[in-house]
Amino acid sequence: MKKTLLIVCDGLGDRPVDGLTPLEAADTPNMDSMAKEGICGIMDTVLMGVRPGSDTAHLSLFGIDPFRYYTGRGPFEAAGVGLNLEEGDVAFRCNFGTLRDGRVMDRRAGRSEEGLNKLAEEINNIKIEGADLIFKKAAGHRAVLVLRGEGLSSNVSDTDPEREGSGYNESKPLDESMEAKKTAEILNEFTEEVVEQLKDHEVNQRREGKNKLPANIVLARGAGMKTSIPSFMEKYGLSAACISATTLIRGVSREVGMELIEVKGATGHVDSDIGAKATAAIKALDVYDFVFLHLKGTDEASHDGDFESKKEMIERIDREVIAPILREIKDATVALTADHSTPLNIKQHSADPVPIAVLGDVRTDEVKRFTERDCARGGLNRIRGLYLMNIILDLSDRIKLFGA
Amino acid sequence: MKKTLLIVCDGLGDRPVDGLTPLEAADTPNMDSMAKEGICGIMDTVLMGVRPGSDTAHLSLFGIDPFRYYTGRGPFEAAGVGLNLEEGDVAFRCNFGTLRDGRVMDRRAGRSEEGLNKLAEEINNIKIEGADLIFKKAAGHRAVLVLRGEGLSSNVSDTDPEREGSGYNESKPLDESMEAKKTAEILNEFTEEVVEQLKDHEVNQRREGKNKLPANIVLARGAGMKTSIPSFMEKYGLSAACISATTLIRGVSREVGMELIEVKGATGHVDSDIGAKATAAIKALDVYDFVFLHLKGTDEASHDGDFESKKEMIERIDREVIAPILREIKDATVALTADHSTPLNIKQHSADPVPIAVLGDVRTDEVKRFTERDCARGGLNRIRGLYLMNIILDLSDRIKLFGA
Repeated sequence: MKKTLLIVCDGLGDRPVDGLTPLEAADTPNMDSMAKEGICGIMDTVLMGVRPGSDTAHLSLFGIDPFRYYTGRGPFEAAGVGLNLEEGDVAFRCNFGTLRDGRVMDRRAGRSEEGLNKLAEEINNIKIEGADLIFKKAAGHRAVLVLRGEGLSSNVSDTDPEREGSGYNESKPLDESMEAKKTAEILNEFTEEVVEQLKDHEVNQRREGKNKLPANIVLARGAGMKTSIPSFMEKYGLSAACISATTLIRGVSREVGMELIEVKGATGHVDSDIGAKATAAIKALDVYDFVFLHLKGTDEASHDGDFESKKEMIERIDREVIAPILREIKDATVALTADHSTPLNIKQHSADPVPIAVLGDVRTDEVKRFTERDCARGGLNRIRGLYLMNIILDLSDRIKLFGA
Repeated sequence: MKKTLLIVCDGLGDRPVDGLTPLEAADTPNMDSMAKEGICGIMDTVLMGVRPGSDTAHLSLFGIDPFRYYTGRGPFEAAGVGLNLEEGDVAFRCNFGTLRDGRVMDRRAGRSEEGLNKLAEEINNIKIEGADLIFKKAAGHRAVLVLRGEGLSSNVSDTDPEREGSGYNESKPLDESMEAKKTAEILNEFTEEVVEQLKDHEVNQRREGKNKLPANIVLARGAGMKTSIPSFMEKYGLSAACISATTLIRGVSREVGMELIEVKGATGHVDSDIGAKATAAIKALDVYDFVFLHLKGTDEASHDGDFESKKEMIERIDREVIAPILREIKDATVALTADHSTPLNIKQHSADPVPIAVLGDVRTDEVKRFTERDCARGGLNRIRGLYLMNIILDLSDRIKLFGA
């Protein structure tokens, strides 16, 4: 039996711009050596033609069918900030935003964290009839809202308008149930109460004094209920750890039963100390059967539509992450892939399959470079993300026979 | 409409050892000619990343979804020795073993068949309250036990400890049902009665006199209930025949409605007269619409971890089976593949896909050799075993339109 390392570069896949994708344009001798000595392929992380969210993609990569277990992003954000949900809870992903003259002028309150911890504490003390309420600040301008009580539903619309310049939305029930009606009402009452409390709050006076946008509204989206996801330990008999600086990905990993490893300097942005993450992954493999290493910078560059920044991030990953891993890790199964493509021309996730290379006891193929198009000619052909765990655990000799 | 021949080399697929798989290292001009003149691909017989048993793999190759129809190996072993199960029967695959001082010292009673027919007859006469009992000797040291009666369940654990040196296991119910409790009790009572009857049996005194291990216990495993599998005739409108010397495979084939053709000299081992099986398959194709030819030796060599023996078996199949088939059979669809990979480095089944080549009215591709890695570049790409029957019957023009 071998150890298994899964490396996911968020949003790595792309489409050609002037003939080359960022991955094709990048100088990546270490990734290419994985392609050369391993087996390659392309992968639909969720399903052919489905544009995966980061949450549904990772669930699928962990062998959990998102069509069965995913109800919304909220519960994973909640898990990512360390909240333990109970059956029946409804969780929302939230932003602090800036409201001016009844309009959302900035959905992220100028991305300034100043005073947000204090505001979050006060919001957490708001009382609404019909449900208990937990509110916790997450990274940056983000937060999580959990409603707890009898008869709630996640089938309600967002209050976040997803664009700026208009008013915030009233949450509406998305089905005829009493539960959805009740939940939407509670969310609306909560939102009005927040606006009332933050309007002239001293934190916001201080922020404005420093020429920062006030954080005077909480915008909620991605309602989801807790579902009972089978744990890694149950499903695969594995001890597993996650290295990621992204709240959502940490939440998904925690929900499937991984332990979270903290790495100093890991930010989830292009400035992250990814070398420290690689070192942590190498060390973690001594302790855990399975280690998942998540690198976010590639996706960030993609959403910004910045070819050079994405190419540079890829080159940094090649030098600072893949090189030490290839040098230090012997006799493990190592898979390198992405959770989805984020093509620069659309600046959002797409359904284009992602490249994958697997090192270990594999049928090495003739692919020489780790790129979207080279990998499409690899020995794995085209695989589905939901089966990836089984495929790599089979190579690590950790899968039981089905039948006899 | 054409006739269809499916050739399955058990456990054929492998991983490279010093750069080559046994199939790559073997000299296989006839298999290669099938690859050259046919269409190739790789196949997950059950599902990507699933390690198939021989039973689940063959069910899948015959178009029967094992996730739906497979409850355990027992019923197929029973069918393989010609027992007609009834709905509600629970069947076990058994070994004669050797018990010494309360410990299982040999799970196969030294692999000697001496006197086992007589012992089996007597065991068949054992009466246990609560169920009727049928016990029948199979090939070598193997046997089948069927429990028949009201309120039985296959959800019970094995008495076979699967390793030597410890005692045999007490069967335990695997759920809370009365049926599982009752079945486990009956199996335990049966086992104790067998131990009691065989302890000083004259057959065993004779065996020991000849320096052979006594056969003084029956170890049961793979409990399964009869499920109503759709027959080949119903499902595809085909008359079908199976040529195999392996009890389990004969059982699966019989359960899906194939007729069993006996071939003298076919043993299911590396010494089998596989030329005689090829001749039988060629003749059978005059009579049946569909013929399934199963060759076991490749898997046996794999479980022994013997590269040379596996390579030689492949070369024998090439010369003694594929050559005459290509010479004699005209105008049929002929598929050559495996039920699963059995890599030499792990000596057990793996989830690595198997190579496949299909001759007939096909879109010939550029693959020139029948190997795991050449076939991965073939025109079929990567297919799922469950759909193989439909794919090859479509080429034989025996499939009805779905829709209009």
